[in-house]
Amino acid sequence: MTPDHGQLIYEGKAKRIYRCDLPDRVFIEFKNDATAFNALKRAELAGKGRINCQISASLFEMLQSKGVLTHYVGVAAENWMVAQSVDVIPLEVVVRNIATGSLCKQTPINHGMEIFPPLLDFYYKDDSLGDPLLTKARLRLLDLIEESQLKEIEKQATLINDLLRVFFDSLDLILVDFKLEFGFNDQGKLLLADEISPDTCRIWDKTNNHPQDRILDKDRFRKDLGEVVESYEEILKRVQGVTSKPRNYK
Amino acid sequence: MTPDHGQLIYEGKAKRIYRCDLPDRVFIEFKNDATAFNALKRAELAGKGRINCQISASLFEMLQSKGVLTHYVGVAAENWMVAQSVDVIPLEVVVRNIATGSLCKQTPINHGMEIFPPLLDFYYKDDSLGDPLLTKARLRLLDLIEESQLKEIEKQATLINDLLRVFFDSLDLILVDFKLEFGFNDQGKLLLADEISPDTCRIWDKTNNHPQDRILDKDRFRKDLGEVVESYEEILKRVQGVTSKPRNYK
Repeated sequence: MTPDHGQLIYEGKAKRIYRCDLPDRVFIEFKNDATAFNALKRAELAGKGRINCQISASLFEMLQSKGVLTHYVGVAAENWMVAQSVDVIPLEVVVRNIATGSLCKQTPINHGMEIFPPLLDFYYKDDSLGDPLLTKARLRLLDLIEESQLKEIEKQATLINDLLRVFFDSLDLILVDFKLEFGFNDQGKLLLADEISPDTCRIWDKTNNHPQDRILDKDRFRKDLGEVVESYEEILKRVQGVTSKPRNYK
Repeated sequence: MTPDHGQLIYEGKAKRIYRCDLPDRVFIEFKNDATAFNALKRAELAGKGRINCQISASLFEMLQSKGVLTHYVGVAAENWMVAQSVDVIPLEVVVRNIATGSLCKQTPINHGMEIFPPLLDFYYKDDSLGDPLLTKARLRLLDLIEESQLKEIEKQATLINDLLRVFFDSLDLILVDFKLEFGFNDQGKLLLADEISPDTCRIWDKTNNHPQDRILDKDRFRKDLGEVVESYEEILKRVQGVTSKPRNYK
């Protein structure tokens, strides 16, 4: 069911954003398109949009209940979210609790190593440049945000990691790493934006020690492990088993 | 003329290191081999070894006269240097005064932009990983050096940049960027190691505004601009025009 949305504002790889009835709100449609390796690998995964929308909604509600400011307002249909309109900062903020993926390709750090304190990596969000890793000095040189805003993003990302890890742990899920995006609403307030889903998090099943079978996230798609949607659904089942259904946008 | 050296200890892309008569010293032979793009591009440039050895020697002597601790002891033949034996830290410390090269490929920063304060980039020295850029957090995770040693390296790199810029400027040369390596001698003292030459520095002729003609460094080789050795020789001529001949190792 498609809600009564306004004009398309932006289309990304996994979401479309439309105008809403209120100028400071937007509709976000979660698509079934899956992409990896800077969109070199593509597929259509029936159900993915719905699952990611529902997981994101539940996680945003959990974070909001702990005081984290997010763009999330409510869900408008099974794969449609309503959110505050934000100017997204072109940064991918990645928090890593266990080493895997690009970190292990780019450093001698072994796959599976626990990282404590967690590693915060900033990437410049630009497909044409391949979303390059940024040092703090390069980030400052790009002059995207003020120093105090950078500090606030680091603080929020660390808090969000703490909250998500405890929450996932209670569901027998291990939060390996994840990507966040932040933006400013029309009052200039810093909000967590984008989504929190198996597309943007690496999540392992704590009850399964098999190095591939335990993977429940987009790595199943990246590595051709199969059962992508089934694994996403398993995460949704566990998340919504302990939360109430996401609130409807009226 | 080859000095009376001991056993070969190490062979890199541009240098060979041999044992010396004293255990805390080594002979360094500067080779004519030129490589670029992680050794995908190779050539033999007659005279390069001699020129880089002589430029490095003069620059090390200049830096030592200003109090910078380096591994340099003296020259033993035109392309042979004697240096203190050091455990080299596997880090490339890059200082950038003007944006060019990989920085402009990896960020939206425009070629030719002046960078102030200069940008310090750390790369992990590992050909198999492609010498990846390291954030400070990743550098700490690799646990290569202590925090106080990292601070000292940053301080020294900044000082060396200040001294080299002023020196090159007096020769009508612009120091665009350069790579340093550091190591510890057998007393655990931090020393500037490796070389400082047109292979490891980008240097532009201040008296020439042509974007290609002004290039006097390894970019001439990388970009197939020709006159590589002639340009290196031009730098040597200007450097040795204002310094005494490098001291001989007795």
